[in-house]
Amino acid sequence: MASTAKKSVPTLTLAGARTALAAAEKRAQEIKVPMNIAVVDSACHLLAFERMEGAKITSISIAMDKAFTAAGHRIPTSSYKEAVWPGGPAYGINNSNGGRFSTIGGGVPIIDQETGAVLGAVGCSTGLPSQDEDVASAGVDAVKRVLAVKAKL
Amino acid sequence: MASTAKKSVPTLTLAGARTALAAAEKRAQEIKVPMNIAVVDSACHLLAFERMEGAKITSISIAMDKAFTAAGHRIPTSSYKEAVWPGGPAYGINNSNGGRFSTIGGGVPIIDQETGAVLGAVGCSTGLPSQDEDVASAGVDAVKRVLAVKAKL
Amino acid sequence: MASTAKKSVPTLTLAGARTALAAAEKRAQEIKVPMNIAVVDSACHLLAFERMEGAKITSISIAMDKAFTAAGHRIPTSSYKEAVWPGGPAYGINNSNGGRFSTIGGGVPIIDQETGAVLGAVGCSTGLPSQDEDVASAGVDAVKRVLAVKAKL
Amino acid sequence: MASTAKKSVPTLTLAGARTALAAAEKRAQEIKVPMNIAVVDSACHLLAFERMEGAKITSISIAMDKAFTAAGHRIPTSSYKEAVWPGGPAYGINNSNGGRFSTIGGGVPIIDQETGAVLGAVGCSTGLPSQDEDVASAGVDAVKRVLAVKAKL
Repeated sequence: MASTAKKSVPTLTLAGARTALAAAEKRAQEIKVPMNIAVVDSACHLLAFERMEGAKITSISIAMDKAFTAAGHRIPTSSYKEAVWPGGPAYGINNSNGGRFSTIGGGVPIIDQETGAVLGAVGCSTGLPSQDEDVASAGVDAVKRVLAVKAKL
Repeated sequence: MASTAKKSVPTLTLAGARTALAAAEKRAQEIKVPMNIAVVDSACHLLAFERMEGAKITSISIAMDKAFTAAGHRIPTSSYKEAVWPGGPAYGINNSNGGRFSTIGGGVPIIDQETGAVLGAVGCSTGLPSQDEDVASAGVDAVKRVLAVKAKL
Repeated sequence: MASTAKKSVPTLTLAGARTALAAAEKRAQEIKVPMNIAVVDSACHLLAFERMEGAKITSISIAMDKAFTAAGHRIPTSSYKEAVWPGGPAYGINNSNGGRFSTIGGGVPIIDQETGAVLGAVGCSTGLPSQDEDVASAGVDAVKRVLAVKAKL
Repeated sequence: MASTAKKSVPTLTLAGARTALAAAEKRAQEIKVPMNIAVVDSACHLLAFERMEGAKITSISIAMDKAFTAAGHRIPTSSYKEAVWPGGPAYGINNSNGGRFSTIGGGVPIIDQETGAVLGAVGCSTGLPSQDEDVASAGVDAVKRVLAVKAKL
């Protein structure tokens, strides 16, 4: 019988992270914007990372921060908008977590359709925030498709 | 024969950095604003630095951060404007890279006319952002002139 | 014609980093120690990273720091030994570079046989330092083999 | 008449820093070890810096830290030896100043013969600590010679 002192947490695997990386990279090539692509697990820790040829050096840590933030706060980093501007209820939140909390589009959580849990996140950086989110979403969607296929079996 | 496991990246030399330093310093004297002048290579690492007599102590790291950012993100640090103001898509990007991402004018990339690659950047600080950019641009232009002369030979 | 203001620097590509990752992972499976594997370019910047299932969370940054240090100081991180112990000439060097300088075995530079230049480095962490170095070396050797084959063509 | 509320502090100038840089670079070329060379003023703030072609990237901050420490604690960084080892009275001091306190040879203060004041310091890094100190000392000696000549006039 299950103990209340422990539980099991669903999370992305390295295999899942690779699925996300490959799909994100493919999308980045389609839109012709080389990307830094970071994938974290449900505990916000890095699982896999790739810097495509031509991606910006100063976007390495930004990609990681976006994935970190999306997994931890469980919403896309593009969601903050008015909330973080002066007068908004979350103004200044980007200073939290040692400055790693990113409110720039390009971080997208991977939500488990089966449990509703956040399994991890993909963060991308080098292009416009909208391009970064587009590419990160391609990675997230690929993982969801794999999970959906498995669920049906 | 070229291997896909390695490639060659163009970058600024110390000789090139000195050319930039000398020209930036000359321009700073013309406009009568002593400057901190930092020059980084294409990997965002410091190549050369000088603090002119009278330049601000608290602008030492600002000059370095501007050069770091301009080389990494490949555009002048003055380019961000609306993008980083409240409501802009990159609002909060200045918190990234351990707080080193500068969105204040005065960081200018050195773009190689021949290859289009960013060879490095010059960052200046002490004056108004427009003055800092003016002086940094003088350094960048001097390197471009040297490269153009060599290219003709 | 070559200008003295710019030069070309050889460096590892993402393709090369993947070769290193795959070989290091294979070796980690052989010795049954799951690893964090980080690969950096010649400028010490992260190119690719993977955390194998079971690798330690607190070894993520250690693996990155080992790769960073091996690429920058151009020797395996296992080389320091007496130099960094009390009484050694480099005692305390692990505090440098914002605490990122690692003197623990497991970081191995990728030296280009053709030019002698350091192309990048592989850093591993989770096992004993000797195991970490074993796995990192497997990654480095795989890149050298690919480069050697290409050189012969 | 002098007020007790203010005083005048002797310090190195940028001209003096350039003298140090040039002499240190010359010495580095003689011993065939390319160096990162940092020069700070009497307030421990960076005046000038150069990274010679081939100097280590991970030694950029080490050179700066050595100069910072030598100017602030007013002795060569090679002086600490037993004092910083376990059991020594300064054990752990390398953790101070945000980790910037360097106890590795290669940082040498510039002492004003006339007043006994520390005017600044030179810090070098890339070679063995003994080589780093050799090169830094060449820079310091050059400044002392210039000062001695001026004092005689």
